[in-house]
Amino acid sequence: MAKQLTSRKENYSQWYNDLVIKADLAENSAVRGSMVIKPYGYAIWEKMQSVLDTMFKETGHQNAYFPLFIPKSFFSKEASHVEGFAKECAVVTHYRLKNDENGNIVVDENAKLEEELIVRPTSETIIWDTYRRWVQSYRDLPLLINQWANVVRWEMRTRLFLRTSEFLWQEGHTAHATKSEALEEAEKMVAVYANFVEKWMGLPVLVGVKSPNERFAGAIETYCIEALMQDGKALQAGTSHFLGQNFAKAFDVQFVSKENKKEYVWATSWGVSTRLIGALIMAHSDDNGLVLPPKIAPIQVVIVPIFKNEEQLLAISEKVDGIVKELKAKGISVKFDDRDTRKPGFKFAEWELKGVPVRLAIGPRDLENGTIEIARRDTLEKEVLQITDIAEKIENLLIKIQDNIFQKALSFRDDNTFTVDTWDEFDKQIKQGGFVRAHWDGTSETEQLIKNKTKATIRVIPVDEKLEKGVCILTGNPSKQRVVFAKSY
Amino acid sequence: MAKQLTSRKENYSQWYNDLVIKADLAENSAVRGSMVIKPYGYAIWEKMQSVLDTMFKETGHQNAYFPLFIPKSFFSKEASHVEGFAKECAVVTHYRLKNDENGNIVVDENAKLEEELIVRPTSETIIWDTYRRWVQSYRDLPLLINQWANVVRWEMRTRLFLRTSEFLWQEGHTAHATKSEALEEAEKMVAVYANFVEKWMGLPVLVGVKSPNERFAGAIETYCIEALMQDGKALQAGTSHFLGQNFAKAFDVQFVSKENKKEYVWATSWGVSTRLIGALIMAHSDDNGLVLPPKIAPIQVVIVPIFKNEEQLLAISEKVDGIVKELKAKGISVKFDDRDTRKPGFKFAEWELKGVPVRLAIGPRDLENGTIEIARRDTLEKEVLQITDIAEKIENLLIKIQDNIFQKALSFRDDNTFTVDTWDEFDKQIKQGGFVRAHWDGTSETEQLIKNKTKATIRVIPVDEKLEKGVCILTGNPSKQRVVFAKSY
Repeated sequence: MAKQLTSRKENYSQWYNDLVIKADLAENSAVRGSMVIKPYGYAIWEKMQSVLDTMFKETGHQNAYFPLFIPKSFFSKEASHVEGFAKECAVVTHYRLKNDENGNIVVDENAKLEEELIVRPTSETIIWDTYRRWVQSYRDLPLLINQWANVVRWEMRTRLFLRTSEFLWQEGHTAHATKSEALEEAEKMVAVYANFVEKWMGLPVLVGVKSPNERFAGAIETYCIEALMQDGKALQAGTSHFLGQNFAKAFDVQFVSKENKKEYVWATSWGVSTRLIGALIMAHSDDNGLVLPPKIAPIQVVIVPIFKNEEQLLAISEKVDGIVKELKAKGISVKFDDRDTRKPGFKFAEWELKGVPVRLAIGPRDLENGTIEIARRDTLEKEVLQITDIAEKIENLLIKIQDNIFQKALSFRDDNTFTVDTWDEFDKQIKQGGFVRAHWDGTSETEQLIKNKTKATIRVIPVDEKLEKGVCILTGNPSKQRVVFAKSY
Repeated sequence: MAKQLTSRKENYSQWYNDLVIKADLAENSAVRGSMVIKPYGYAIWEKMQSVLDTMFKETGHQNAYFPLFIPKSFFSKEASHVEGFAKECAVVTHYRLKNDENGNIVVDENAKLEEELIVRPTSETIIWDTYRRWVQSYRDLPLLINQWANVVRWEMRTRLFLRTSEFLWQEGHTAHATKSEALEEAEKMVAVYANFVEKWMGLPVLVGVKSPNERFAGAIETYCIEALMQDGKALQAGTSHFLGQNFAKAFDVQFVSKENKKEYVWATSWGVSTRLIGALIMAHSDDNGLVLPPKIAPIQVVIVPIFKNEEQLLAISEKVDGIVKELKAKGISVKFDDRDTRKPGFKFAEWELKGVPVRLAIGPRDLENGTIEIARRDTLEKEVLQITDIAEKIENLLIKIQDNIFQKALSFRDDNTFTVDTWDEFDKQIKQGGFVRAHWDGTSETEQLIKNKTKATIRVIPVDEKLEKGVCILTGNPSKQRVVFAKSY
């Protein structure tokens, strides 16, 4: 097999890179830190977009589009925001090129911008500058808006999907008349994310809030979902921020309330990105390649004909046409791989690598016997079935696979979640990986010290969990509840 | 009426700007030349995207995503391309900001890029640099890829949707083994555009090729669709380019043919943009606001209740719930505008302004009589109908409206297409507007002279039209066929 991957055990990081490249998901481009998302990888993103977009619309949001460029001065307006964002970003300084005397293309120094433009790393500032014009009265609220866009955050060390200078995402930005409405919105959207990642991506997540150290720059509270990858590291899969009135004050967005008083507007923002594809890969895939949950797979079923000559292929194709129609009628996406330039073994390996949930194989003997071979990508089990009611059988199997992928990831997380009470236990467990539930005294200083010692951070302070008093693993100071530590991507 | 527009007769250009702003389609942003596409305008774009995306996929294309940034040197590789594009564009020179001694945010001069990055004005160069890695053998061809993206072309004089520094578009980029396949692709895609603009946007177009002066920078042949706006100016609504082997040679993209020979790959590219929204507005709308063809309208039917008290609203709402369900069952999008903060007259004007194709109004007397008032946006006609089979009646009406909008635009174009044979006639007619069919001697010099004298350009050299010999209106030199001149956006 030409396309064999490094095994996870051998080198997890290399396995990930191999898989992304060999399954045709993405590759590095000529532009340092920017990736090309290849058609198969983009098709997964389109599935995610389509489901999320429907969820956003069902919760009352509308899409809009705001400028790519943000005037530099906007970043100075919200003090904590600039600290977090404005530093590592792409700066546009000129608006024209010209030919120099040697015919080379050079920047035209006469076309220098008066104020530099920043390529958006996130859009709070330009959007709140716009909201000032849109909001006058309580009647204009809430504003429930989402944007699908590209953003740029200059990165020195990049990894495909997980950390690239340019990435694709959605960013919701909402404006509300009251604090409680905004809080409710931030909580609602983290719940939408959790629902999407668990039900569609088959990946269990912890839901909670971030500690102050890990909060979004400019947020009062950051809600997040955290998932555990197969190497025992955590991955932040989505965040939803309660921004208080910080941006409204920075951009002077006030409204006249029902009581005829001028008040500052309350804000949230929330986003998920192409990083989710990285999570999807690292959570479910194996040494044979990608394992896709059926609900997010661009191709759910692939059919490979086994034939020695054109006549056999023709007979098989006739049979397959009917199966394809039946599957499509049930809304199942299916590909008939009838290439005559590749052998079945090659095709089997290729579709395994690409994570197609169900593979059917059918040859001349199957035609005689009315059978078909069915292979599950998640368990790699094969079975020969009667072809009768095949669409219904596959429909049920896809549900089973979706569930199995989730249950497997859940068991993995359960097996890799540890509760510790002493520093020694903590230190030892963090080295081995997994979610580590421990007491913490609630101070940023302690969190920073723990990070310095172990590289672990507080991934999430769980919500909806019984509080349990204890003492901090590092300082011995009192703690109100356990928090979840891990090393992370 | 607070939202009244300038009339088209009074000032067409002002009417357009008023309409875009007051119908909540888009507005200028704090960034010079960049617009904010507001939710209602973006919803129209989403409808267009969804239809086009389906058409692209049905013709075998897949979506992918390529980097926003392009290394400056890439633009020098295709000589004619750089002349057309690389001049007016946004240049990224630095990748970091910092605080200066006064705490102000400034560009960090230590973070200067070795090679400047250009924000893509179009993606041929970065994509062909990528295709070099994707294409080795004839088995890798054709590559049929599309990208939905934002692009930036620095503009000094901007108009919402029609000409902005940043805009949204799709760009198809395909690679083929033979010249004839690439030509077929370029022609197929201009036909897809023509079909979309005529059948969905209700706007008749001329299909043809561009003269060399108007060709895309780097193309061998540019196919285009041209539409006529209500002020008699032409608007280029979409282009499809046969690029020959220019980009393959510039980026060294070769493949091994079936005959085992190394050959350069043949290319096409094709695109439409948010400019289509400008065309939609200028072609169909009137002094009351936007007129949307039903197939592209985010809201196809709006229902306005006429009530004096809560009790009446309740009774109406019950009736309306049933209608809404019936309409939705037919796939018709409907909004029940039950706001109690606005009077019916205000709502009527607002939905007229926003171009909703059908408006229903229902009050207490209608409930008694089993009737409903139905108003068409395109003709402004009103009628009181029995409520029986209302969904079917509306379904038929929407088809009728779609057709009427197209027929009206077609009549307008026919009435404003002129055939002239002398320079005096030509000069006079061009001043008055419309498509002017005239003979031209086929030289770039003559076209340029005509442009200098009249501001008119050759919008399209019609294809599929009987050739007709004649003499050039300007030079008297022989001509093989009439071409279509107009002033344009």
